[in-house]
Amino acid sequence: MWWENKIMRTFRCQLKQSPGVLGHLLAELGDAGGFLGEIKTIHMGRSVVIRDIVVFADNFSHLDKLIKIVNDNPDVNLLEVRDEVLEVHQGGKIAVRSRYKIDSLSQLRRVYTPGVAEVCLRIKEDPHLAWRFTAINHLVAIVSDGSAVLGLGDIGAVASMPVMEGKACLMETLVGLSGIPILINTKDVDEIVKTVVTIAPTFSAIQLEDISAPRCFEIEERLRQQVDIPVMHDDQHGTAVVVLAALLNAAKMSGVDLKSTYFGQIGLGAAGLAVAKMLMHYFGQSVKGADINEDAQKRLARAGGIPADLEEIMQSCGVVIATTGVPGLIKPEMIQPGQIILALSNPNPEIKPDEALAAGAVFAADGRSVNNILGFPGIFRGAVDAKVSDITEEMLEAAALAIAESTPPGELVPNPLDRQVHRRVAQAVARKALELRLSRADLSGYFD
Amino acid sequence: MWWENKIMRTFRCQLKQSPGVLGHLLAELGDAGGFLGEIKTIHMGRSVVIRDIVVFADNFSHLDKLIKIVNDNPDVNLLEVRDEVLEVHQGGKIAVRSRYKIDSLSQLRRVYTPGVAEVCLRIKEDPHLAWRFTAINHLVAIVSDGSAVLGLGDIGAVASMPVMEGKACLMETLVGLSGIPILINTKDVDEIVKTVVTIAPTFSAIQLEDISAPRCFEIEERLRQQVDIPVMHDDQHGTAVVVLAALLNAAKMSGVDLKSTYFGQIGLGAAGLAVAKMLMHYFGQSVKGADINEDAQKRLARAGGIPADLEEIMQSCGVVIATTGVPGLIKPEMIQPGQIILALSNPNPEIKPDEALAAGAVFAADGRSVNNILGFPGIFRGAVDAKVSDITEEMLEAAALAIAESTPPGELVPNPLDRQVHRRVAQAVARKALELRLSRADLSGYFD
Repeated sequence: MWWENKIMRTFRCQLKQSPGVLGHLLAELGDAGGFLGEIKTIHMGRSVVIRDIVVFADNFSHLDKLIKIVNDNPDVNLLEVRDEVLEVHQGGKIAVRSRYKIDSLSQLRRVYTPGVAEVCLRIKEDPHLAWRFTAINHLVAIVSDGSAVLGLGDIGAVASMPVMEGKACLMETLVGLSGIPILINTKDVDEIVKTVVTIAPTFSAIQLEDISAPRCFEIEERLRQQVDIPVMHDDQHGTAVVVLAALLNAAKMSGVDLKSTYFGQIGLGAAGLAVAKMLMHYFGQSVKGADINEDAQKRLARAGGIPADLEEIMQSCGVVIATTGVPGLIKPEMIQPGQIILALSNPNPEIKPDEALAAGAVFAADGRSVNNILGFPGIFRGAVDAKVSDITEEMLEAAALAIAESTPPGELVPNPLDRQVHRRVAQAVARKALELRLSRADLSGYFD
Repeated sequence: MWWENKIMRTFRCQLKQSPGVLGHLLAELGDAGGFLGEIKTIHMGRSVVIRDIVVFADNFSHLDKLIKIVNDNPDVNLLEVRDEVLEVHQGGKIAVRSRYKIDSLSQLRRVYTPGVAEVCLRIKEDPHLAWRFTAINHLVAIVSDGSAVLGLGDIGAVASMPVMEGKACLMETLVGLSGIPILINTKDVDEIVKTVVTIAPTFSAIQLEDISAPRCFEIEERLRQQVDIPVMHDDQHGTAVVVLAALLNAAKMSGVDLKSTYFGQIGLGAAGLAVAKMLMHYFGQSVKGADINEDAQKRLARAGGIPADLEEIMQSCGVVIATTGVPGLIKPEMIQPGQIILALSNPNPEIKPDEALAAGAVFAADGRSVNNILGFPGIFRGAVDAKVSDITEEMLEAAALAIAESTPPGELVPNPLDRQVHRRVAQAVARKALELRLSRADLSGYFD
């Protein structure tokens, strides 16, 4: 439910060079429900212009409809429909590289045998040196069984690989960590835990990804107990961090005092339960939660939350967060004046922001404005740099604050591709680790 | 036993600018048992020259002795002793990189959500597409439990990481594969097999590395049965391939007809047994083998070999290969006229080549001239490109022939850093896969 699930194509169009041609074409596409992405000018001629227009369709028949619109436009010639997404996926999106060029036997002797033997022996004598003299200190496993991938559900581990590679690309790009996808060939909790524990010495941290609830809770909990490196299920905590950051900014922008507000969480899956837990811990008060699954309600109660239903939450809570995957679940007439509504299901929210605002909400946003890319890279970077054995709730909240504070005025969250933001998140996590005396690294100079 | 195990240091020396100063210094170091590597001129002045001299010592007290020699030389000023090996190991030798720059939201949408969702769904519908649209087709697991690392023995998985990273560096540098070290936190055969099977969907091949005998035999055998991608224990088969290549060239250089020769293999560990098996398969005749371990002798017998002892082999075999790790095991008086002797233990062979030649051998070499870097990169590249489910004995032999045929005249094996050689090995493996109808890939254009 968390991500958009649309087909993305690039239309290469030759348009008549005349005012209004582009505008009318885009209007027609928009009226037919087509979202638009980048528009790039390829060639600007005297009588024609060639442009690449990125179009998002709901499904293939919708795509056909959009193509027909372009073909039917007398001023436009559709030259090509390209699938740029598939193009970038050819051969995968990640690769392992040697940090050194090995172009001489003397370099070979340094990087491999015989030089390597002495490094091995040093590490054998003092295993802590592995952190310094191997890649372990930046290798992060990205582990998935493919059971809850984006909004697509249980598509299996192999089909989830493009997502895991995408995460690895972002880790390198944003914080310089080396993400290693690990696709797990079983859904059995014991086997998953056992497997990850067995290969854990390879890594400095473990990111669990797209594993379905409720198995994700037990897997994460057991791994946190059994390995000495940070383990985080991003769908839970990465999401909660970004939601808290967005909520802090939403309150600021709308002048709501969160300390005197009741919180309601609708949908208690992996993300929803983590959001509820984080709100309880951060604000020191209970949170009402609703889910059609009774076990999910019980989990909330065990975590200190108050099981409730949709109507009760809508009536009694000043802040309502929804992560149900059910479009239109929240009706305009349920909205109370002055509420903050974060309806986060993608691609279609529980209530559209403009409808919620029209119905009296003081602030409303949907999932497109809460991008969890903002969370995991900096959180892992900070945790690995501080060499903590666990990422605590306090560190996650420090990350949320750093994101909130890095947000430009008028925005809900910062640009997810701004590396400065990720650096600040990492520093906030490491600083909290120091404060809590949980850092096991020398962090002198880290906060400069 | 297979690799040199020396300490490597770079001496930065300021030498008096005068004929003979460098020569005498190097002679003194050599007389004291110091091997020399690269010598690089850093500064050429009027009265002094500064040079970096790479020196290999047997151990730390030997290193101290070599340092003292330099310090005692009145014409030389030792400016610095540097550990360049440790320098290149700072932070590890490998990293995962994103193949695409993610510097715009539109690129983010292609590489990650929402674009990625459609790729996931396509793979779900047709899992074969994962080979095309993910990195699986070039990710190779390099799996070790650290139980038999180089000549160092059981140093544990974490301490073996520099070797695994070195292999990954070579894979990328030589054939463009992405090697992923996987350190295994157990020595239990069942658990190792189970773990590798569970994460196997992530990879296009599995290289087992530095796992001790006899566990390595069972682990490899069971994995080959249980996963649909190539599994190869490099210490066995990679080594056997390079030894066969060297033997073919040795016979050519010395005019020995291998078809009418008996083969003897002394030492039946992982490498030795694999060499014996390959010789039997390739030449179609039995091989005599000796080992002090009775189980190893039995394994040879089960594979069709003839258990024997050292003396019998030395007396009756025209080709003797030794991989025992016991320096000086073969006495000069054991050598028969016209024998080919490959005494491959490192750093000190079973008999030095010049001693063997003086005692009547027609050809002799030690382990330094048989570098198994020549084997695994091309073998895996060819197997992955042909998408075979298994690397057969025939493919390994094709690899050996390709190495032998790529060897410049007068050399025993080619330069291990020559990428053309690795390309030829890969093509030979893929061609054999095609011949055997075991290729599952479209290889049109592959042999151009």
